[in-house]
Amino acid sequence: MRIGFIGLGQMGSGMAANLIRAGHAVTVYNRSAAKAAPLLALGAQLAARVADACAGDMVLSMVADDPAIEALAWGEEGIAAHLAPSALHLSCSTISVCMAERLAALHAGRGQRFASAPVFGRPEAAAAAKLFIVAAGGSADLARCEPLFAALGQRTFIVGERPQDANLVKLSGNFLIAVVIESLGEVLALTGKAGIDPRQYLQILTSTLFSAPVYRTYGELIVAGRTKPAGFAAPLGLKDVSLTLAAAEQLRVPLPLAGLLRDRFLRVLAAGDPEVDWSAIAQLAARDAGL
Amino acid sequence: MRIGFIGLGQMGSGMAANLIRAGHAVTVYNRSAAKAAPLLALGAQLAARVADACAGDMVLSMVADDPAIEALAWGEEGIAAHLAPSALHLSCSTISVCMAERLAALHAGRGQRFASAPVFGRPEAAAAAKLFIVAAGGSADLARCEPLFAALGQRTFIVGERPQDANLVKLSGNFLIAVVIESLGEVLALTGKAGIDPRQYLQILTSTLFSAPVYRTYGELIVAGRTKPAGFAAPLGLKDVSLTLAAAEQLRVPLPLAGLLRDRFLRVLAAGDPEVDWSAIAQLAARDAGL
Amino acid sequence: MRIGFIGLGQMGSGMAANLIRAGHAVTVYNRSAAKAAPLLALGAQLAARVADACAGDMVLSMVADDPAIEALAWGEEGIAAHLAPSALHLSCSTISVCMAERLAALHAGRGQRFASAPVFGRPEAAAAAKLFIVAAGGSADLARCEPLFAALGQRTFIVGERPQDANLVKLSGNFLIAVVIESLGEVLALTGKAGIDPRQYLQILTSTLFSAPVYRTYGELIVAGRTKPAGFAAPLGLKDVSLTLAAAEQLRVPLPLAGLLRDRFLRVLAAGDPEVDWSAIAQLAARDAGL
Amino acid sequence: MRIGFIGLGQMGSGMAANLIRAGHAVTVYNRSAAKAAPLLALGAQLAARVADACAGDMVLSMVADDPAIEALAWGEEGIAAHLAPSALHLSCSTISVCMAERLAALHAGRGQRFASAPVFGRPEAAAAAKLFIVAAGGSADLARCEPLFAALGQRTFIVGERPQDANLVKLSGNFLIAVVIESLGEVLALTGKAGIDPRQYLQILTSTLFSAPVYRTYGELIVAGRTKPAGFAAPLGLKDVSLTLAAAEQLRVPLPLAGLLRDRFLRVLAAGDPEVDWSAIAQLAARDAGL
Repeated sequence: MRIGFIGLGQMGSGMAANLIRAGHAVTVYNRSAAKAAPLLALGAQLAARVADACAGDMVLSMVADDPAIEALAWGEEGIAAHLAPSALHLSCSTISVCMAERLAALHAGRGQRFASAPVFGRPEAAAAAKLFIVAAGGSADLARCEPLFAALGQRTFIVGERPQDANLVKLSGNFLIAVVIESLGEVLALTGKAGIDPRQYLQILTSTLFSAPVYRTYGELIVAGRTKPAGFAAPLGLKDVSLTLAAAEQLRVPLPLAGLLRDRFLRVLAAGDPEVDWSAIAQLAARDAGL
Repeated sequence: MRIGFIGLGQMGSGMAANLIRAGHAVTVYNRSAAKAAPLLALGAQLAARVADACAGDMVLSMVADDPAIEALAWGEEGIAAHLAPSALHLSCSTISVCMAERLAALHAGRGQRFASAPVFGRPEAAAAAKLFIVAAGGSADLARCEPLFAALGQRTFIVGERPQDANLVKLSGNFLIAVVIESLGEVLALTGKAGIDPRQYLQILTSTLFSAPVYRTYGELIVAGRTKPAGFAAPLGLKDVSLTLAAAEQLRVPLPLAGLLRDRFLRVLAAGDPEVDWSAIAQLAARDAGL
Repeated sequence: MRIGFIGLGQMGSGMAANLIRAGHAVTVYNRSAAKAAPLLALGAQLAARVADACAGDMVLSMVADDPAIEALAWGEEGIAAHLAPSALHLSCSTISVCMAERLAALHAGRGQRFASAPVFGRPEAAAAAKLFIVAAGGSADLARCEPLFAALGQRTFIVGERPQDANLVKLSGNFLIAVVIESLGEVLALTGKAGIDPRQYLQILTSTLFSAPVYRTYGELIVAGRTKPAGFAAPLGLKDVSLTLAAAEQLRVPLPLAGLLRDRFLRVLAAGDPEVDWSAIAQLAARDAGL
Repeated sequence: MRIGFIGLGQMGSGMAANLIRAGHAVTVYNRSAAKAAPLLALGAQLAARVADACAGDMVLSMVADDPAIEALAWGEEGIAAHLAPSALHLSCSTISVCMAERLAALHAGRGQRFASAPVFGRPEAAAAAKLFIVAAGGSADLARCEPLFAALGQRTFIVGERPQDANLVKLSGNFLIAVVIESLGEVLALTGKAGIDPRQYLQILTSTLFSAPVYRTYGELIVAGRTKPAGFAAPLGLKDVSLTLAAAEQLRVPLPLAGLLRDRFLRVLAAGDPEVDWSAIAQLAARDAGL
């Protein structure tokens, strides 16, 4: 398939590479073109402008946030202005429910197709084609995406026809991960101040009821006190909790845990270093305990 | 080994049965003796008084809370008054850090031994000898317990020499489970109000980053809206979060998530039915969302 | 002075009447013109369109929220398009810090003046010219507003030259009031469940350390259980707490109390009746206590 | 009246002095007798033992917490063992609801009388006889106390016949003050980071809706950043919030604000200096904002 790929950050670079390796004809666009070099070496075409990435059957976008996709999708130079009728925009970014709705309307207004397929997984998983993909959209549209999903991830979940539902699932999943991080931070502060060995404690948790990847991955980061380099930076954590809260406000759903997490991220960011991993919020409980 | 077993509730009954099946000579005591009948059928002796359960090498206690063990261990009719010097009291109850310290001092004052070995697992796991056991105490004492641990659980973790550390690990573990319950309640309220299918949503979670027993077990209970019969009743959930908070206050460790959970349990109990499962707190997010 | 007055809600109607009574030539505009009738009887002119209210030296806007002022200020039919150069737009609405910045930029771009002067006080205070006014803007601009401030309120506080600072003061003040409401709700639930008479309890508070109008006003509403008619409706409470949180997020300031209040308002609104007073959040503590 | 006075801390010293000045025959007891010197100079008798302070018609206790009054009231050397039948123990300490119940039972068991009369006011108010007194007990008992109340405070509120109700009112009042401190800390962090002058901001608040002593007193302490010397030390703040939470747990009343405050006090105390004023919790919001 002829695919445009927009957004070559930590996640997007690995994903685009996997599409190329799977034999697709991929034209890549990134605001700073330097990021494209390794992909050109794999056989990608370089798009000098967004429009150049919109000439095929499908354009996949993987960018940091709402403002980024807004700047790329709208306007004379934007995706919608250049995508062919009936071509598909597949948004893999973790953006707001509201932005997914706006994108769907934007493309529908021009006879184009839109689907959402945000992914779970850190950059290593993106590079290894081990992402979990949560997709929503028209069933014919999703059928067209199947070869891509196969090249990008280990499993795809279809949550329905409304693209924005996939975004809500993704946001709520990141919120759940942040809860795990915070809760590990609290119990490690408590047992650590009592003098219990943190690695052994963590091993008890992950060998028993909490034998899930998320407890292992973040437990190790927290115990090691390693907040850099960021696999997923704290500002993105704040963004996702804020978007979860925004979706919840729209739907009139109180989320006390999300309010608490929002403050944790703000506190980490107020300390001045936006390049720490989002798991840095787990250090706050220890600090507040005087450790 | 000649073992006294005190406390034949939902957990204790299954545990005592497994000790009998493993060939130990078990004398059982329970406040209301009726609960002993199935165990007598398996070969247990009945202790009419606490003292009668204290004649062997070891007495194992498995009761509901601090007041229960306090009433059993102290006083002229209590465990300490009747246990032989150098005999061991193994406390498997989920009691406070402070009570574990007091029990250790009580027995030490009489030349008796004391160790803590609280367990993770619901009544089904107790019956199936699938408990996870978290033990702390003198190494010789724990060595004596090994045959019991083997009969009771699937794995034992030794956390150190101070008995109370095992209790803190257990309490913090229950606190972590309660966090999972609350967080599932919140995301299910959010995605449910958006119209996303809860079973499918749960399946996405538990097939990906949250593939741990605790997410599966409680996710299913919450989605089914099943709060009775209680595997672990809400007052016990309140007790454990309160004991976690008490230990944290003693150690000067703020635990914002625990404060929030405490209020959730109080709210469930204020509604008037103390016999619901502790996972009933997960229904509050849905109720607050108007679902 | 020739003044345009835009927004004849519960607050605006009383304020406009006071300006007329003080001798100003007031042209009033409201989306639904029917609200203007009592003011026309006092001597106001009716503006059929926004533009008709922008012909004088100053236009004062008093509307519900950001979308309302956005719809009125921008566009071909908007305030900015019709206000004379050097004429002043005085915004008394409780809008976001961000919107105040955008309005200032909008008018500056056309050589017009802009100042913010949100007010504290419920509709009765607006009608009685007893408002407290918090103003910020250029000093010459605020000097022009002095006769208006004198006609509208009992006291004016100048907080500086940046208009948006007045909005932040106003939002934070409403946040503080909401904290008072919530805290009264909690202590009244606690003492009420203990059987202490709520009126006497409230009298103790307001005769001693809490002898401020806000404790008296809201204490009485809460004890009476009176949530209608709304002096300040719950959706406005949610709006102001949300705007406080938005300003705090922009500035990287964690506000745990605001997060908690946001959930209280969402819960009240999820219950389905948006016309209750914002003090309805105080009933939640009682409900959660089973009262 | 012949009065025993037990507890010569910052509050008790001023109160005892006022009783002496009002003409009462006061015998004072304090664990470290040195504190009694200024009172002896005013005409007090020194009690070498608790018993010596229990020979009159009434004994008034004003001590720091539950353990202190427990050590003084029970036992062979305690108040109850030495007070005459029908003599009255008036407890002015801020103790738990549960302890007030236990004291009432202790004295009732010996035919003695008991009443609670905790006070609002910092040490300056105690010295100036400007306390607010919240009293509960039998009406005849409280009638006997009237001359004392007149000598100690500016106003007395009778809340009923159950002594513990006065303690709950007092605890809930301190909880409300702590809420004010926290809320001022949050708004001052928010507006301060925006560049708004804190003294002017505070003046706006206290000139308008928040014109209560508690906002003025604590607002000034916070803006000045003055946490020492403590008028009311942080460990007492923690104690009172914890006792409020304990009473609430007993009554099954969720109190989200109290849970949050508890963590604030723990965090201040975990930082290592227990001699700061309880208003030190207000500095945390600023610190978390990076100020």
